Amino acid sequence: MVGLGLLPAAPAGAFNLARSEKANKKVLILGAGLAGMNTAYELGKIGYDCTILEARNRAGGRIWTVRGGTTETEIGGETQTCRFDEGLYLNAGAARIPHHHQLTIHYCRELKIPLEIFGNFNEAGFYYSDSPKGALANQRVRAREIHADMRGQLYELLVKANDQKALDLPLTAEDADKLMTWLREEGDLNPGKHYAGSERRGYAVRPAGGTQAGEIGPAHALKDIVESGLTHPAFANIGEYTYHQQPVMLQMVGGNDYLPRAFAKILGDKISYGCEVKELRKTQPGVRVVYLDKKTGQTKEVSADFCVCTLPLPILKTVESDLSGNVKRAADFVPYMETSKIGLQFKRRFWEEDDHIFGGISKTNQDITQIFYPSYGFLGQKGVLKGMYNFHDRANRMGALSLAEREKAALEQGGKIHPQYKTEFENSFSLAWQKIPYSKGGWAEYSKSARERMYPALLEPDDDIYFAGEHVSHLTAWMAGALESSRRVVEMLHKRVSAN
Amino acid sequence: MVGLGLLPAAPAGAFNLARSEKANKKVLILGAGLAGMNTAYELGKIGYDCTILEARNRAGGRIWTVRGGTTETEIGGETQTCRFDEGLYLNAGAARIPHHHQLTIHYCRELKIPLEIFGNFNEAGFYYSDSPKGALANQRVRAREIHADMRGQLYELLVKANDQKALDLPLTAEDADKLMTWLREEGDLNPGKHYAGSERRGYAVRPAGGTQAGEIGPAHALKDIVESGLTHPAFANIGEYTYHQQPVMLQMVGGNDYLPRAFAKILGDKISYGCEVKELRKTQPGVRVVYLDKKTGQTKEVSADFCVCTLPLPILKTVESDLSGNVKRAADFVPYMETSKIGLQFKRRFWEEDDHIFGGISKTNQDITQIFYPSYGFLGQKGVLKGMYNFHDRANRMGALSLAEREKAALEQGGKIHPQYKTEFENSFSLAWQKIPYSKGGWAEYSKSARERMYPALLEPDDDIYFAGEHVSHLTAWMAGALESSRRVVEMLHKRVSAN
Repeated sequence: MVGLGLLPAAPAGAFNLARSEKANKKVLILGAGLAGMNTAYELGKIGYDCTILEARNRAGGRIWTVRGGTTETEIGGETQTCRFDEGLYLNAGAARIPHHHQLTIHYCRELKIPLEIFGNFNEAGFYYSDSPKGALANQRVRAREIHADMRGQLYELLVKANDQKALDLPLTAEDADKLMTWLREEGDLNPGKHYAGSERRGYAVRPAGGTQAGEIGPAHALKDIVESGLTHPAFANIGEYTYHQQPVMLQMVGGNDYLPRAFAKILGDKISYGCEVKELRKTQPGVRVVYLDKKTGQTKEVSADFCVCTLPLPILKTVESDLSGNVKRAADFVPYMETSKIGLQFKRRFWEEDDHIFGGISKTNQDITQIFYPSYGFLGQKGVLKGMYNFHDRANRMGALSLAEREKAALEQGGKIHPQYKTEFENSFSLAWQKIPYSKGGWAEYSKSARERMYPALLEPDDDIYFAGEHVSHLTAWMAGALESSRRVVEMLHKRVSAN
Repeated sequence: MVGLGLLPAAPAGAFNLARSEKANKKVLILGAGLAGMNTAYELGKIGYDCTILEARNRAGGRIWTVRGGTTETEIGGETQTCRFDEGLYLNAGAARIPHHHQLTIHYCRELKIPLEIFGNFNEAGFYYSDSPKGALANQRVRAREIHADMRGQLYELLVKANDQKALDLPLTAEDADKLMTWLREEGDLNPGKHYAGSERRGYAVRPAGGTQAGEIGPAHALKDIVESGLTHPAFANIGEYTYHQQPVMLQMVGGNDYLPRAFAKILGDKISYGCEVKELRKTQPGVRVVYLDKKTGQTKEVSADFCVCTLPLPILKTVESDLSGNVKRAADFVPYMETSKIGLQFKRRFWEEDDHIFGGISKTNQDITQIFYPSYGFLGQKGVLKGMYNFHDRANRMGALSLAEREKAALEQGGKIHPQYKTEFENSFSLAWQKIPYSKGGWAEYSKSARERMYPALLEPDDDIYFAGEHVSHLTAWMAGALESSRRVVEMLHKRVSAN
């Protein structure tokens, strides 16, 4: 009933666990990302004594907003300092909030972080297929042209097949007629049941005042669309269709690090920064953790009744530990996503001024894969585009380049879509998550077999050590995954303590 | 080339007409809506002496944002005063800005009015079909369920028809294979080429942390969708498809009256408020206008070299004039849209908290037709829904009701979609544009024959009287139509004056 929208779902709202005198326990949390901070925040509310060790000098982990002054050094890479102007930023990690990610939105509400719409899907975005053949190859084409022309021609095929009694429709004659009417409307077919272009694909000459009625350009033939590579998965309609990217999507006003910053402010000195975990030991009962205090260069240790480990698996793998074989195997073998991004600052928002693009994405089968247009600061002077967001091999290729080479490649490939790149570019900041210290990857990317064989080891405590983070969820890669997993650990741990 | 996106379109940007000494002319403008004010603003820049007569005590015409304290009395209706809380508003007229409406966006840029995304299309919106039969009738269904299930089942039909060689594909065998692969991906068909539901339709149990992988509900059968009336035009995918409503759409931060307010502020006392035009006379050369000064009750008159008349045609019809027969005929017979809206203030944003809806629209074949969720003030305490937006007969039926009856009907019909209406409602403000003084309709709704036979009379000056407004454009109903038409008149008039 709930899924069908018949009843409102129970809101994943305030989390009011009963305080218990037994909660007077020390909990040591590894990692001040969303999962770790949420654990400390919620356990703290009900009486636990929580401490977080965080290797970086900032909280948030992969919820990371890069602004002017941000400095980073990739593993084996050069140090770069961001030179974006005041007010411009790049969400280098988590960028989008699906409208149904209840916990992400719940904490934004609880911590008073304003949200605004993230324009994930924009019919004005461009497709650029780098292809050896095809009439539409190697040029930019508006998404709306491909969408309207595909829909029109496919629906025309359906209507014609039905006219030829070639469709096996599970409908009464009356309902089949209704469906055909619907197809003709949705496809914008003409009275001859033919798709001959549509205002939905945009105008060659725009409609305006007086006598200017507008002129619609000719439809792209199905043949040209397919031959030019525009049915390649690079141009899949993910932003329209998939559950986690459907409209409406949201973002935090000013940058998505407002959520981790809010948690970090509340937690204050419960977070120890610059503390790199080296060993994770079971003391039966309890845990002992050895870490390097980077501020002093000293090795220190700390004990607690419980540990909640939120280290990403590629980092957990590097920690000496008494963890079970199954957990170690998960840490060793669960694959993580290679993914890279570049923020490009331009001195003019030409995508808005010249191309009427306000948010959304352009797609290409070149290595940059995507260009994201900012959903904030519209009509301003300067702007920062996300000039690349890619995965797997493409991310590895771009990540392997020097910063200067990455910038050059991003400008060259993106410049094929936006010739204005040449004259308007100012500066860049790029990153490859697989090379970012203390993350070493974008997110856990479970194969079916990894989910079946390795994931279960992370679901139960390994003696007094619990696991949380997006990798302990079915919402991997999302802020909501980190939050859902940590709430689950809070419940499990509190239930165990209360029962004792 | 421009339409195909190969070259940036020339921006409809700054409007730098050459000043001319001959511009020392008096121009009397009727109506301080967008068209009238834009005319005065642009003619003023190049030296003309412009005056505007405006019947209302505010500028903006049908660009009207209703807030707490707004008062209105419909023709033959009761007086109502809006009781919305501070910060909440209803765009009673123009609500949406298409991303390609260059002039609307140009003036927002020039007058420094911030824009934000208007979420016109939301997969989380509901469809509610009031229907005597069908398994999905008389209940709310998420838009995403219908979209994903229709797409899946239609693409399955196409793939099957192709397997049976029943499609006449204009493609090589290799390209036909690519298209079939694309259809299977876009439709989310299973390896057996069958659509058996998809995550795109949403979850019956949401995916979360730990073991909660999520459960997808069963697909709605094509038969049930059609039989329940969900292929009725009431549920057409306008917000996704049509050129003027495609993502991304925009709105002005805080209310769309910021644009008319900015023009009015610049024009200052060039606008005379409370001046109702009674007569429009040709003095050959020049014009003479008789008007009622509502502040004093006195009838006055004013002369000028030229007149730019932006009165909506149903208002122009009521003015005594020397206008040509063709213009009078257009004023008499061009049909205007009947359309009504209601703003409903609720003490809790239940659509966000319970239903995860942030902006966008729910659709129904009931008289209310649509419910718009606000694209601003997310996560706030209270909110104002647009609880009705309808046209033609439905607007007439609702408009004919008393304010109390409208409120009751909107709550009853909308309450079928949102049972929370009952407990959360606080107050309302409603309007039917066909009953609003000085507008008497939503916008010019040209039939094909009216466009051919009556529209041309408005395109040329009738001696020294020019016509502007959305009704003198091919962008009727849009702010851009008013602006495009007025820029055109400015150019025409200045060209004529400069040539003399």
